[in-house]
Amino acid sequence: MGWGDLGVFGQPSKETPNLDRMAAEGMLFPNFYTANPLCSPSRAALLTGRLPVRNGFYTTNGHGRNAYTPQEIVGGIAQDEVLLPEMLRKASYVSKIVGKWHLGHRPGFLPLEHGFDEWFGSPNCHFGPYNNSDRPNIPVYKNSQMVGRYYEEFGINLKTGESNLTQIYLEESLVFIRSQATTHQPFFLYWAVDATHAPVYASKGFLGKSQRGRYGDAVMELDHGVGVILGELRSLGLAEDTFVFFTSDNGAALISAPMQGGSNGPFLCGKQTTFEGGMREPAIAWWPGHIPAGTVSHQLGTVMDLFTTSLTLAGLATPGDRIIDGLDLTSVLLNSTLIDRPIFYYRGNVLMAVRLGMYKAHYWTWTNSMEEFKKGINFCPGEEVVGVTTHEQKEHTMQPLIFNLGWDPGEKYPISVLSPEYQTALQQITPVLEQHQKHLLPGVPQLNMCDLAVMVRRGGAVCHTHTHTHRHMVLYLRGDRPFPSMGKNPNPIVGTFDFHNVKYTSITHTHTHTHPPQSPPPAQFSLYPQLSLHPHLPSTPSDISANVFFFSKSWSTGKIGALQEFSALLQ
Amino acid sequence: MGWGDLGVFGQPSKETPNLDRMAAEGMLFPNFYTANPLCSPSRAALLTGRLPVRNGFYTTNGHGRNAYTPQEIVGGIAQDEVLLPEMLRKASYVSKIVGKWHLGHRPGFLPLEHGFDEWFGSPNCHFGPYNNSDRPNIPVYKNSQMVGRYYEEFGINLKTGESNLTQIYLEESLVFIRSQATTHQPFFLYWAVDATHAPVYASKGFLGKSQRGRYGDAVMELDHGVGVILGELRSLGLAEDTFVFFTSDNGAALISAPMQGGSNGPFLCGKQTTFEGGMREPAIAWWPGHIPAGTVSHQLGTVMDLFTTSLTLAGLATPGDRIIDGLDLTSVLLNSTLIDRPIFYYRGNVLMAVRLGMYKAHYWTWTNSMEEFKKGINFCPGEEVVGVTTHEQKEHTMQPLIFNLGWDPGEKYPISVLSPEYQTALQQITPVLEQHQKHLLPGVPQLNMCDLAVMVRRGGAVCHTHTHTHRHMVLYLRGDRPFPSMGKNPNPIVGTFDFHNVKYTSITHTHTHTHPPQSPPPAQFSLYPQLSLHPHLPSTPSDISANVFFFSKSWSTGKIGALQEFSALLQ
Repeated sequence: MGWGDLGVFGQPSKETPNLDRMAAEGMLFPNFYTANPLCSPSRAALLTGRLPVRNGFYTTNGHGRNAYTPQEIVGGIAQDEVLLPEMLRKASYVSKIVGKWHLGHRPGFLPLEHGFDEWFGSPNCHFGPYNNSDRPNIPVYKNSQMVGRYYEEFGINLKTGESNLTQIYLEESLVFIRSQATTHQPFFLYWAVDATHAPVYASKGFLGKSQRGRYGDAVMELDHGVGVILGELRSLGLAEDTFVFFTSDNGAALISAPMQGGSNGPFLCGKQTTFEGGMREPAIAWWPGHIPAGTVSHQLGTVMDLFTTSLTLAGLATPGDRIIDGLDLTSVLLNSTLIDRPIFYYRGNVLMAVRLGMYKAHYWTWTNSMEEFKKGINFCPGEEVVGVTTHEQKEHTMQPLIFNLGWDPGEKYPISVLSPEYQTALQQITPVLEQHQKHLLPGVPQLNMCDLAVMVRRGGAVCHTHTHTHRHMVLYLRGDRPFPSMGKNPNPIVGTFDFHNVKYTSITHTHTHTHPPQSPPPAQFSLYPQLSLHPHLPSTPSDISANVFFFSKSWSTGKIGALQEFSALLQ
Repeated sequence: MGWGDLGVFGQPSKETPNLDRMAAEGMLFPNFYTANPLCSPSRAALLTGRLPVRNGFYTTNGHGRNAYTPQEIVGGIAQDEVLLPEMLRKASYVSKIVGKWHLGHRPGFLPLEHGFDEWFGSPNCHFGPYNNSDRPNIPVYKNSQMVGRYYEEFGINLKTGESNLTQIYLEESLVFIRSQATTHQPFFLYWAVDATHAPVYASKGFLGKSQRGRYGDAVMELDHGVGVILGELRSLGLAEDTFVFFTSDNGAALISAPMQGGSNGPFLCGKQTTFEGGMREPAIAWWPGHIPAGTVSHQLGTVMDLFTTSLTLAGLATPGDRIIDGLDLTSVLLNSTLIDRPIFYYRGNVLMAVRLGMYKAHYWTWTNSMEEFKKGINFCPGEEVVGVTTHEQKEHTMQPLIFNLGWDPGEKYPISVLSPEYQTALQQITPVLEQHQKHLLPGVPQLNMCDLAVMVRRGGAVCHTHTHTHRHMVLYLRGDRPFPSMGKNPNPIVGTFDFHNVKYTSITHTHTHTHPPQSPPPAQFSLYPQLSLHPHLPSTPSDISANVFFFSKSWSTGKIGALQEFSALLQ
């Protein structure tokens, strides 16, 4: 769902009276962001409070490629990530997720393994129907039991768009809320509905009701669901004890428009992109008696803040053993304060842009490939901003494109690099970027497979074409942290060395993986793509605070560079 | 000001708390239109309740060219047009206009000659500064006395954007309201402020306050003004006796963006165009105790409806001797009914598009010329819809482009001509179009000059290049209505004739006028351009209900066609 799909955010059809009322009774956030313009990584970020590049919900199979968890993927949320319900359990919260999980579908990755006490929904998106044993229809779970499959026990009529799923998800939520109200237990409900995701569906009572066609019907049903849930909280006397937040995984999918795609209001492009249309989300906070009614907060917020804020509201501290990207927004919500903070726009493994205050600097721009575009796959239909909505991955790291989102929310007018405003903005953003990169330890990418997940191509046919072996030289700094496993092979230590009085362990990590036919773009200094996150190598040892660098002398040959060469690079 | 400039219509900066509150206390119209995407004709339409093509606020100098009233123009609102304040006077209303008039600046055209009792403001836009006797600075009037000029007694600092004008206009309005409250006289106030029109200005207290730059400062000051006026009505105890309507002349001028142009939300293009961005306007009705608070009406409305609705509220009937395009919206406002009606999108003398229900059919598409576009004048920055945002005047009269504004408010996805939906839509719209054209008597164009008003080019330099004489054969049907005067010359009657038992008088009207260098596009059948309004000539005499046709055998040679030829054409 996109920013512009709600009446309160300017949808001309004005078909979301419940969400609009929620805003009138609560706090509206016009500057709220997801952590990735695609669903799986966005949800992983919400539940861990961490950027996907930290929590592993990304791929390095391609440069700047988003990835998710389709049926074929073997990966999922890592065991060492701590999810919100796991934390809340410490404060006796009972947690339930209703709807799409999307953090991995194999045993070990499912919600009940990661802190949720209850689950009704599916591990994956409701794509389908499928009819073979290699690729069966997506299962629907009640807790840890499969209770049926989409298109079988849980029907979705692709022709009419009819499905009762949102109603089922609503009922599951109401039963949960009533049950906790009876036992007086604190609870966390994650209502992760997906009717607005293609193939879009709605139940009979909503089909054909919207001005906007089937997509609008789905929005109306979700809006109705929110209204019923808030009404239930009120009638159970729980409204003043319940913090409710509404937001979306990513911007509306314009490739599904007009019939199955929504609106990103005045913002550029949509889902999959790091323009505002891909990452700025509708967002409303509601807590009668605590959050002042009818207010607007211009706080820059992210889905990761929901992790941190929820912990604070539950009286819990955030995990101290890892970097958490989410901010505690309680003072924003309760006292209308404003906290200065940047927004990082990642697309897969690449930091594409940074927002600070009203300024947004793009280090990379990309919509999709010209090849895809020519086939009619358009992430920005009807929009073209020359040099901005590029069809090649265009690097601007040496001279970012900077926009002022105050007077140019649509990202149409890059600020002249010759202007004082550009210099001021750059001087403000550069240290923030450097600080972020300095402390960034990219997590082990969980979505590194040649399958649909890497979104290299639509359809799975192009996979399995180009398998070869890479050996990566790993510099393991200071020796005080475990090296995360990459694949099934052990990582043989080949030696240790000192560099400016810091002890390093070097490891040759060899693994075999499969590439799509085209070569990935050459990374800077011929480094493993993660290093595109570090466009500037640290210049002094004290800057070397990241824990692991993956070096490969040459992507194309797979040769390992000599230690001396790395030292030289590090200098 | 554009649809997307108000918080309640989705402006991300949310800087219009007073207008947003006005909507919360009143009725919001997301489907409200102007009558022309330029200021002069829009205002003429509001005050006469008639389309500019009827009330004469258009030009035939060029095909599909908007025109306004700059300093050089000699024309203005015709004496035989009846304006809203003239009508309201019959019910003892006192009327005042504060701000820009824009219906003609010569004596005879000014507000006090057309029903207003009071005026504070200027006859033209606040362009300038000028410093020569040929083109002095624009005067500012108090009633019929000039009290100074812009950039002289009424300062506008183009560098800082500072001007106190909105504050002066606000004070003028408050004094008027208080005065009528004291004398208990019914009143009509037209607060026609123009701070958001380039060159954009704001007073010291607002400059630099907006996230959006100077344009946003101006919006904030106008919003503040609305808040003060509504507050004054409340504190005088007049709120429940006063119907207040907020809207705008035209869509935001994107050629002035980003620094002096606003937002048209999710709609295509802006001012000057007949896409939604040019003609759909922010609109809010407010009348505590009468109009239900916090409601949304999907009624298709126009500025012309304000004429008719106001008359009804004042207990007056609309003039019976002419076609009035405005609808009476009182039942919509008071009882939330919906009235079926079309919207006609005119650009100058050309009917570009028609909306009926959710369908909008474009008969002509045009943004601006490729020549202008290449110079950087862009009516649709960052937007391009192939075959829709055309840079030539593209005719679709034989097969209109049809959009469903419900699921495609951005006009990006023309409905396939092969689809049943297209056929259904066309079958609904065609009779409405034909009915409109059948009853259309184009008014005498008041803005037919080679000057800035015709907007053929920006800047006046290209005028005065091509003067020649046209003779037009006029067919005057039925002889029962006076032929409107065209220029200073009398219109010699050259004969009468019968055609299918209807009596016609033929007149040769000769006048001299000046064209820009390029020839106007050839009108259909080599007719005078008004006839592009009638793409299909009536096929039987009973269809001939329009009163006057202007025929010219050939635009380029000026030759008059023989009567027989006209008869043949009419057959």
